[in-house]
Amino acid sequence: MDKKIKFVSLITDFGNKDGFVGIMKGVMLKINPDLQFIDISHEVKSFDLFNGAFMVERSLGFMPEKAINLVVVDPGVGTARRPIIISTKDGHFIGPDNGVFTPVLENEESLLEIREITNDAYFLDEVSCNFHGRDIFAPVAAHLSLGESLDGFGPIVKKPIKLHLTKPKFGRTEILGEIIYIDTFGNLITNIPNNYLTDKVQEIYCGKNICNLVEKYGGGFFRKLSILEGSHGYLEIFLKEFSASEEFNIKKGQEVRVKLK
Amino acid sequence: MDKKIKFVSLITDFGNKDGFVGIMKGVMLKINPDLQFIDISHEVKSFDLFNGAFMVERSLGFMPEKAINLVVVDPGVGTARRPIIISTKDGHFIGPDNGVFTPVLENEESLLEIREITNDAYFLDEVSCNFHGRDIFAPVAAHLSLGESLDGFGPIVKKPIKLHLTKPKFGRTEILGEIIYIDTFGNLITNIPNNYLTDKVQEIYCGKNICNLVEKYGGGFFRKLSILEGSHGYLEIFLKEFSASEEFNIKKGQEVRVKLK
Amino acid sequence: MDKKIKFVSLITDFGNKDGFVGIMKGVMLKINPDLQFIDISHEVKSFDLFNGAFMVERSLGFMPEKAINLVVVDPGVGTARRPIIISTKDGHFIGPDNGVFTPVLENEESLLEIREITNDAYFLDEVSCNFHGRDIFAPVAAHLSLGESLDGFGPIVKKPIKLHLTKPKFGRTEILGEIIYIDTFGNLITNIPNNYLTDKVQEIYCGKNICNLVEKYGGGFFRKLSILEGSHGYLEIFLKEFSASEEFNIKKGQEVRVKLK
Repeated sequence: MDKKIKFVSLITDFGNKDGFVGIMKGVMLKINPDLQFIDISHEVKSFDLFNGAFMVERSLGFMPEKAINLVVVDPGVGTARRPIIISTKDGHFIGPDNGVFTPVLENEESLLEIREITNDAYFLDEVSCNFHGRDIFAPVAAHLSLGESLDGFGPIVKKPIKLHLTKPKFGRTEILGEIIYIDTFGNLITNIPNNYLTDKVQEIYCGKNICNLVEKYGGGFFRKLSILEGSHGYLEIFLKEFSASEEFNIKKGQEVRVKLK
Repeated sequence: MDKKIKFVSLITDFGNKDGFVGIMKGVMLKINPDLQFIDISHEVKSFDLFNGAFMVERSLGFMPEKAINLVVVDPGVGTARRPIIISTKDGHFIGPDNGVFTPVLENEESLLEIREITNDAYFLDEVSCNFHGRDIFAPVAAHLSLGESLDGFGPIVKKPIKLHLTKPKFGRTEILGEIIYIDTFGNLITNIPNNYLTDKVQEIYCGKNICNLVEKYGGGFFRKLSILEGSHGYLEIFLKEFSASEEFNIKKGQEVRVKLK
Repeated sequence: MDKKIKFVSLITDFGNKDGFVGIMKGVMLKINPDLQFIDISHEVKSFDLFNGAFMVERSLGFMPEKAINLVVVDPGVGTARRPIIISTKDGHFIGPDNGVFTPVLENEESLLEIREITNDAYFLDEVSCNFHGRDIFAPVAAHLSLGESLDGFGPIVKKPIKLHLTKPKFGRTEILGEIIYIDTFGNLITNIPNNYLTDKVQEIYCGKNICNLVEKYGGGFFRKLSILEGSHGYLEIFLKEFSASEEFNIKKGQEVRVKLK
């Protein structure tokens, strides 16, 4: 009983229109009716592993202890890519072994054990070729939540797949980063960690636009790009009460240049 | 106590913007605070009973046993259309008698009893003319979940309304079906059951485009349409890692032609 | 124990894509794992306090008794605007003091006490400058749900900020209102209360279009605007089975003119 898990968080690219997510929840509740779900996002860009990994990173540390985190961004569904369970000090992560868990795997001190999911006793009776979220990942998560031990799901995985996440490049006179995510408000999230913002920074440009360094959203100048330490650990560019992305026509991948003194 | 129901699934065309669904949940929780909800979809196309019926069919069998399934796609709200409860071996279905429950009604061995909802003791005190989801269906679902017996809600319904769902047509040399749904990924769901895919199939066309027969999403050819046995029981046409609908400009209603040997 | 609160409703402009809401829920469940959430809307128009206030008004009275209602529409996040808790006979309201709670504040007989949230013992350890939903409002709501007494959160607020919500204007021969919200169906919600529809009303115009007075959605004429008593207390203009907004190109702010006899 001690080992029972109550919370399952969900990140998928399934959208909210087609019923995929509700059906997965139904499958899990049939196995463990005491589960509670936390929807993080079902609007990961279709098939975009980098976007999925970004969402995984964002939510790390904010889910209840020991939660099962189900991440189904799975362009290779039905191919040989492995379904895996990653056990960490923070909780469990279940999904395809395609790199979407890179932020979890990079946090090495927290990693405990990785298993390939091969034991089909934990799958639905019929496994379709294109909805493993329902047929494999959901029932596996529910069985794991009931306290099944990890080694029953399959063999140890030694080399899980990691994405090559873009990191900022350091030069003598500047740091070169880029926009890696644009949120609902049109805020531009960079790949430059907040702690790179030191005394040595002189000016910051997003493409050709200078960014005013401020300490809060409300502190931005009207109609001018501003930059601040973002809530998810990375510098974030915004336009006071407007969409920076729309008004300045800035897309994912745009270069961000931090000029040093 | 035995008869208490814990889960209510929800399918509506209310969207997630206007607060309709949250307000319905609030109404239900005021009556039965132990309820748990499973949102299947709130993005059924406005007023589209066929789309609603499709979503009902998709989720059949995947919800927890005895769940109450609330379906509010209700273009005739405020008119004489009857609110009904359908009791089946799988659970209860509550919504308007407008055909949206056709897949439930066609599964005749599971049907137990159908009641018109007429007893306004189970409604909110004030019933508006245009939000029966809140004023009738939600409180009825919550009272039913508390174990109220079916006959208290109203009289038996003998002839519930069924939609005429399009079925594929058989010829000597071909089967003619059509695209009945397009999902978030741009996958094209046909009305041709998976089990029609026999040795006798020679070629499959979607409009003028030939579809390669494959066994999994990952197995598709790049830039060419593929077809496989879909997870919901119907043949499904897709484009590997892209939207088949967008790239080939295919809409709902497009003809699908299965040429036989 | 008696004082524990189970339900937290949520209204935000965070959207459902970026994970903001799921992360807030994770934060709350870490503090009180027994909480249950009711999502009202996360698609309030970005930074639009009037839209947020409208959503607050819509849901008033429909949430479980004593629920905590968390409303994060917060264009001034990170500035001097105060975080507040409003205690009423219906439940608690937590969010920024920027007018989004105007409908709660106007219901004076229900108001009990308003507190500024200043005690950072209830915040996350690190408070970012741009995600107070996660760092301040969510943990405060969770601690309040555990039965913490209101005076521990901060000092009494005497003059909370109210928005100037547009009210209809009365003339001798007409009432002048406007469209204040357009829902998912394209229905046009006016700011004219249902009870203004008396014997003295002769004709109603939305811009240049006459609106037929009907008693239910289904009662509308095809292709002609109709008006009825809306489910949220205000007159509502609709187009039978179509979007009135799209077909007649009517936007928020459009004048509605009620001609009197």
